Amino acid sequence: MIAENADLQTDLSRYRVFRNGEFAEEVSDIREYWRSDLVCFLIGCTNTFEGALVAANVRLRHIEEQSNPPVFVTNIACESAGAFTGPMVVSMLPILSRQVADVVRISGRYPKAHGAPIHIGNPQAIGIDLDKPDFGELMSLKIDEVPVFWACGVTPQIVARNAHPDIMITHAPGHTFVADWPDNTLDEA
Amino acid sequence: MIAENADLQTDLSRYRVFRNGEFAEEVSDIREYWRSDLVCFLIGCTNTFEGALVAANVRLRHIEEQSNPPVFVTNIACESAGAFTGPMVVSMLPILSRQVADVVRISGRYPKAHGAPIHIGNPQAIGIDLDKPDFGELMSLKIDEVPVFWACGVTPQIVARNAHPDIMITHAPGHTFVADWPDNTLDEA
Repeated sequence: MIAENADLQTDLSRYRVFRNGEFAEEVSDIREYWRSDLVCFLIGCTNTFEGALVAANVRLRHIEEQSNPPVFVTNIACESAGAFTGPMVVSMLPILSRQVADVVRISGRYPKAHGAPIHIGNPQAIGIDLDKPDFGELMSLKIDEVPVFWACGVTPQIVARNAHPDIMITHAPGHTFVADWPDNTLDEA
Repeated sequence: MIAENADLQTDLSRYRVFRNGEFAEEVSDIREYWRSDLVCFLIGCTNTFEGALVAANVRLRHIEEQSNPPVFVTNIACESAGAFTGPMVVSMLPILSRQVADVVRISGRYPKAHGAPIHIGNPQAIGIDLDKPDFGELMSLKIDEVPVFWACGVTPQIVARNAHPDIMITHAPGHTFVADWPDNTLDEA
């Protein structure tokens, strides 16, 4: 059981509504869109292991700069399942070269929150131009930083869009549901 | 006990002899240099975890190309101890971006064989020009590869040289002592 008294119709700070697979509007409350046949999925987020990274003195610029990390649609095809097919979406954090190994090992302890990075360096190899994020905010690399990419919870939004459901409601990028599980309960170390 | 019947005077394929800290000669047998007051140290090598990397389908170009990985003297200062002071030496393996996280996690299971990488990407940040290895062979990066750097057993050679011992004998880079411990006995997973 997660967040016993939570209400998914009101407790995210921002939602996106898609009709027939197309983005329709972004709202802060979905009570008027709710249907009794809707099913909700809660999936993990890299935010979960940020506390562990900060505790290990990893420099996280999006926290220092109070911004949302950039999110990119890649050219990596997800495994298809029935009507659901599409590319993997990733978030990027710039990490100091000397801290990349620590970041891999710490995030790898959180497989329910995307776990270890899926790609490190060479954004062009997965169809990404770092100067053109699809969501989130532009973040330029500084000297001695490497772009590190994690699977992102925005992926199912892109995939579901391809399946053209009548209605689909998601969190807006960067506006996830915050549960009542302490982050260390997901640490599988 | 390691390699019970081994003889460190003959069982490496190549040795380097240093006099007063300066390289004097490279030989394949050190019986004539041996002194009863010499003390030997055996330290780990990244070679130890290569089998585990290959078993995980990590592409290792120096194995494919039958070459010795490039080795570089960095600008990272080691912790000093008495007369012993000097820079860290690293080896470099080019790793596919999508395999870097696996490589970190697998090599990290072998802390007695240098363990996880100390630096990933951005060679210039640790004073390295990839086109100018100090030892080993030049290895250019291919598209979608990232340079991954590990602490290297050549480090004590550089450090001891600064301490000017009368005589010092080391393995020649790439010509390590092969023990009789199976590599998986060092896997701390």
